[in-house]
Amino acid sequence: MTDTSANASVRPSGRRPDELRPIRLTRGFTRHAEGSVLVEFGETRVLCTASVESQVPPFLKGQGKGWVTAEYGMLPRATDTRSPREAARGKQGGRTLEIQRLIGRSLRAAMDLNALGERSITLDCDVLQADGGTRTASITGAWVALRDAIDGLLARGEITTDPLHTQIAAVSVGIVQGVAVLDLDYAEDATAETDMNLVMDGEGRFVEVQGTAEGVPFSRAELDALIAIGAAGIREIQTAQRAALEGA
Amino acid sequence: MTDTSANASVRPSGRRPDELRPIRLTRGFTRHAEGSVLVEFGETRVLCTASVESQVPPFLKGQGKGWVTAEYGMLPRATDTRSPREAARGKQGGRTLEIQRLIGRSLRAAMDLNALGERSITLDCDVLQADGGTRTASITGAWVALRDAIDGLLARGEITTDPLHTQIAAVSVGIVQGVAVLDLDYAEDATAETDMNLVMDGEGRFVEVQGTAEGVPFSRAELDALIAIGAAGIREIQTAQRAALEGA
Amino acid sequence: MTDTSANASVRPSGRRPDELRPIRLTRGFTRHAEGSVLVEFGETRVLCTASVESQVPPFLKGQGKGWVTAEYGMLPRATDTRSPREAARGKQGGRTLEIQRLIGRSLRAAMDLNALGERSITLDCDVLQADGGTRTASITGAWVALRDAIDGLLARGEITTDPLHTQIAAVSVGIVQGVAVLDLDYAEDATAETDMNLVMDGEGRFVEVQGTAEGVPFSRAELDALIAIGAAGIREIQTAQRAALEGA
Amino acid sequence: MTDTSANASVRPSGRRPDELRPIRLTRGFTRHAEGSVLVEFGETRVLCTASVESQVPPFLKGQGKGWVTAEYGMLPRATDTRSPREAARGKQGGRTLEIQRLIGRSLRAAMDLNALGERSITLDCDVLQADGGTRTASITGAWVALRDAIDGLLARGEITTDPLHTQIAAVSVGIVQGVAVLDLDYAEDATAETDMNLVMDGEGRFVEVQGTAEGVPFSRAELDALIAIGAAGIREIQTAQRAALEGA
Amino acid sequence: MTDTSANASVRPSGRRPDELRPIRLTRGFTRHAEGSVLVEFGETRVLCTASVESQVPPFLKGQGKGWVTAEYGMLPRATDTRSPREAARGKQGGRTLEIQRLIGRSLRAAMDLNALGERSITLDCDVLQADGGTRTASITGAWVALRDAIDGLLARGEITTDPLHTQIAAVSVGIVQGVAVLDLDYAEDATAETDMNLVMDGEGRFVEVQGTAEGVPFSRAELDALIAIGAAGIREIQTAQRAALEGA
Amino acid sequence: MTDTSANASVRPSGRRPDELRPIRLTRGFTRHAEGSVLVEFGETRVLCTASVESQVPPFLKGQGKGWVTAEYGMLPRATDTRSPREAARGKQGGRTLEIQRLIGRSLRAAMDLNALGERSITLDCDVLQADGGTRTASITGAWVALRDAIDGLLARGEITTDPLHTQIAAVSVGIVQGVAVLDLDYAEDATAETDMNLVMDGEGRFVEVQGTAEGVPFSRAELDALIAIGAAGIREIQTAQRAALEGA
Repeated sequence: MTDTSANASVRPSGRRPDELRPIRLTRGFTRHAEGSVLVEFGETRVLCTASVESQVPPFLKGQGKGWVTAEYGMLPRATDTRSPREAARGKQGGRTLEIQRLIGRSLRAAMDLNALGERSITLDCDVLQADGGTRTASITGAWVALRDAIDGLLARGEITTDPLHTQIAAVSVGIVQGVAVLDLDYAEDATAETDMNLVMDGEGRFVEVQGTAEGVPFSRAELDALIAIGAAGIREIQTAQRAALEGA
Repeated sequence: MTDTSANASVRPSGRRPDELRPIRLTRGFTRHAEGSVLVEFGETRVLCTASVESQVPPFLKGQGKGWVTAEYGMLPRATDTRSPREAARGKQGGRTLEIQRLIGRSLRAAMDLNALGERSITLDCDVLQADGGTRTASITGAWVALRDAIDGLLARGEITTDPLHTQIAAVSVGIVQGVAVLDLDYAEDATAETDMNLVMDGEGRFVEVQGTAEGVPFSRAELDALIAIGAAGIREIQTAQRAALEGA
Repeated sequence: MTDTSANASVRPSGRRPDELRPIRLTRGFTRHAEGSVLVEFGETRVLCTASVESQVPPFLKGQGKGWVTAEYGMLPRATDTRSPREAARGKQGGRTLEIQRLIGRSLRAAMDLNALGERSITLDCDVLQADGGTRTASITGAWVALRDAIDGLLARGEITTDPLHTQIAAVSVGIVQGVAVLDLDYAEDATAETDMNLVMDGEGRFVEVQGTAEGVPFSRAELDALIAIGAAGIREIQTAQRAALEGA
Repeated sequence: MTDTSANASVRPSGRRPDELRPIRLTRGFTRHAEGSVLVEFGETRVLCTASVESQVPPFLKGQGKGWVTAEYGMLPRATDTRSPREAARGKQGGRTLEIQRLIGRSLRAAMDLNALGERSITLDCDVLQADGGTRTASITGAWVALRDAIDGLLARGEITTDPLHTQIAAVSVGIVQGVAVLDLDYAEDATAETDMNLVMDGEGRFVEVQGTAEGVPFSRAELDALIAIGAAGIREIQTAQRAALEGA
Repeated sequence: MTDTSANASVRPSGRRPDELRPIRLTRGFTRHAEGSVLVEFGETRVLCTASVESQVPPFLKGQGKGWVTAEYGMLPRATDTRSPREAARGKQGGRTLEIQRLIGRSLRAAMDLNALGERSITLDCDVLQADGGTRTASITGAWVALRDAIDGLLARGEITTDPLHTQIAAVSVGIVQGVAVLDLDYAEDATAETDMNLVMDGEGRFVEVQGTAEGVPFSRAELDALIAIGAAGIREIQTAQRAALEGA
Repeated sequence: MTDTSANASVRPSGRRPDELRPIRLTRGFTRHAEGSVLVEFGETRVLCTASVESQVPPFLKGQGKGWVTAEYGMLPRATDTRSPREAARGKQGGRTLEIQRLIGRSLRAAMDLNALGERSITLDCDVLQADGGTRTASITGAWVALRDAIDGLLARGEITTDPLHTQIAAVSVGIVQGVAVLDLDYAEDATAETDMNLVMDGEGRFVEVQGTAEGVPFSRAELDALIAIGAAGIREIQTAQRAALEGA
């Protein structure tokens, strides 16, 4: 059975089971994009840029509404051993497509696309250094980049109603050696029995719950434990997001 | 707030919220494969074949263990309007890759790959007709095809220990007009506020929990309601799987 | 030299040289397409759907005429050993392209594309189970699906002149152990010295004659023998097509 | 009905119905290949090279037998209007694949692959200028290049038995304005009701018969007329092939 | 140090260091293109065609100006050992893309694209036989084909101002065994310490200078020596271009 | 004619014609790679990582020598307007391939590949922010990353002879409004008449000289002026490289 109490031996980093890694959100990391945020969850670092374009995909043309989408990439040597460059291989892998679809869906859940008008915003999440949790860090950083890009549209008077109506953040949780732990780093991720990604909004509701039994299936009690520490972690992360936005 | 009681107006099909569509599992649907199952959840029909091959992917060579993987496809006119053929477009879409990764992971969770020996089993899930829930029907049918393929290996003495140690089934659940409903058909799926796919093993534990807020984010109470009706539905589906296997 | 008389030893199935396998044409096999026919030539089974769309390829735009085309696919385990999925390999093979070009050309030979108006009809022929003769079965089944789709257009008053002016059917013939035989199954196809596909119209004229010496080249007398039994076989198949259409 | 008598008005070139264009076969057209032949049928010009390599495709490894295959290409401006370069489009079209499969099959019909030993010979047929009949010119020229390459292997003692046991040539025939004509040029090909490619061996037997009704289906009498003039034309072409080989 | 004086032992061909191979420019080599030139630098032979089309790429639409671009290809057996066909591999290699970009840029440097009007001219440079210097031969031949195509536009009155305002030619130079040599053949190219391609206009100015140290880096003195013999060689080549144009 | 004297009005940045932007080389920018350098030329920022792997490409197997190669990429929003992601487009563009070939060649010119042993080192150069000169910055940064990776091999005793025998750096120069200027930023690059990239070794010799007339061809005097300021600039950059290495 699962023991969610603190257990010194469980985490290679020495963190408590419900302890996040240090979260840093650096706005304006690059200069060209309408929003540009370097998000760090410990040693995981992702550059998230928001690009506003005055056109929408063909299926939305002429409807007066906008679109928000995401693309995800990992630099070849963001990881411990070099992975082949997807551009050179000639296609994005299944994992990449799955992650960028998740990021896009998560952010669209917070958007009133009609209020955006016929514009599209692309969130590019490029992992400079990976140490577990790159997809949840991407969602977290991309929301801040999206907030900055939309604040720019509002400030320039291009739109008058804020289309981004809630705050989105994400975290990974998992069962490691029978213990529910928050914000897994790579060493934990590689040995976790169960891995779950949670995406929540500013009202504490669920946007995505994606749990996978990597090794052994998990019980209802374990599911509840994972959701509990994940929800608490997301509240902390959302505090960090707001602090970053106030710090401009 | 969510009302999970029966509500006649909610389902276009007239089903109760916790009522499955008729489930049919036809074994031996085609003749060449080691396992071949036509699975039907109402009007959704998927042909699942299991192909045993005496080789493994490069990353497993020489380790004495096996591999189970899945591929998913949809015939172009399985749907109401014709979709472009992926082979003609030159690549599988993100949705396809995501689904086939899910099917493969779900079945591997039930396998002792060492007991399989240096063999691979590919589950091909091809949707002949779609009416919602094709990925959960695929997992359900593929497990029966996998069971048949492995029974063949055992019967021929190629392996002596059964590597498939639990029963896997899946179902979709969702929130439609505020009500948690089981086994969504396409009409419901298209209007659901939240859509969740559950994969469980024979001991009632979770293998995959994949919930997505299509429209509005969902609360913890809604999550609990979805899991409750999903778990009950999967028990019924597992009964149907066992009946199909006994009917040989 | 070639002996075209009946020879009990020649066919693994025990069929007479000029005997077709049982032909079955099941209309309405799936529900979404404007025409949907499962065609069976013995153990060969192909699902043929006709999809009507109100647009034409770019090279025909604005000319007031329509288009009929075909796509062909084989499920990975339609055959005795699993073939790689073309969508996963990222391209359709030469054999696939050759077959779908043949199906499309054969059906267009029966069409008045001006009478169709600016519409396209795509015939998708997907092989669920293969046992020789999949391309000729596809043409035969696709013609019935096309007939159903066009009857729908006529019934709904979308077109007023029938654009499908003749009946198309096809069969394979070959020289096996020096004997001309009709409707080869896979075992015969694999050992045939010569393989020929014939496509004919309702007036007994030729639409396609495609003969290939797989092993030894064939004489004029053999060519004549092949054409004779093929033409007779196609008349029987056309009777089966008409019976299927009347049976609705 | 079809009139095969000479008819001055039928052919834009003024040729008699059964008259070939001037055939030229220039051996040693380029210097690196083991066989290199520029074949000209009137204004159609194809460079055919034979490349001998000491390896075979994976499916033949270790069997002590060889392989003969072909690739076909058309320079972008070989035609009246420029066609996109297939290398730039990222794939070979269906027509290209169909033609190169035909060339390869036709030449393999003349080969004893066991006598070739574990070697492969690739015939590259690249159209420098097109004026109809590129595929039949390719087969005709490729056979001469193959003959030269094999004579080289024999002369160097790399093989001792001649694996090329018969002479292969090809021609196109067609029905133009009701008349069966030989060796169609582009102007005729574009308006032909029926188009047929014939490939024959040195004994006058058929290797390939590929007839297609482009406009109206064709009768048995028309088929016979086409085969008759085609067979006579091929005999002339084979004489030209032998003359070219003697001219070295 | 580098010795640029004549040195009999340096060149396999016995040429003087500053001696070109025989240059031949055959106009009208094929019949369909607006310009068609077979260029030969010794055994290197490239077919260069210029195709005029009355449309421009999307980024230039509606600006009233034209475009000149190039595509480059090598027949598989243009070289000593067969190279895989790029169309079959599914993509053009980096070397091909680099060369065709170079050819296009070099010719655009001589063009007033406004005077061309909304037309595009594509130069296809296809190497029939390679013996070093294919890219510089391509530029040299393509300029003559371009000149012919533009003269046609002027002659037909489609344009009234000549948009091609200077003469472009190119040559390769290199350091072989310490000696600067002109117009390297393949044997020299394979052993050169430094390889440089020069493109110059009719006024003796530089359009492209592309020098690469293949083995050892080169000094300023060597650079000067290379440029000196290259410039002299280009003057000779330009004389040959003008002679070819006058010879029509 | 060209005036290379200082001219306050020429450069948007106010730099003197022969003045570099601030060069920064941050070693250890990411943690996993054997060498990891963020190189900045003003606002151009490229992350260069060196990955050592104990295998070589197929063409080098079993020869006991190593390989050095490079890959280049640009994050989609490194530039002022978003560029499509090459991994999503399914291929690397011609510009990308050209640049990565240049980086690889430049570094190999400094390597004794035999001394490296059967290992490969891949330099990944990913542009985080672009403001002109990304290819020359990449070469400059990649050399430092390569130096670090090789020092690691030497320190761990994996190799005993230093295979990197000289120092490589690069810079761009150009003619802007008739003036030769050093290290062009994007605003200059977009308007330059001529653009040249120079790569030099530690002894002041040339590794690559790549000059292109973007607008008007350039004279010999201009070429000399460009080389003079480029060579001086590279000496400064090499000083910065050595300082970065000493600063570890």
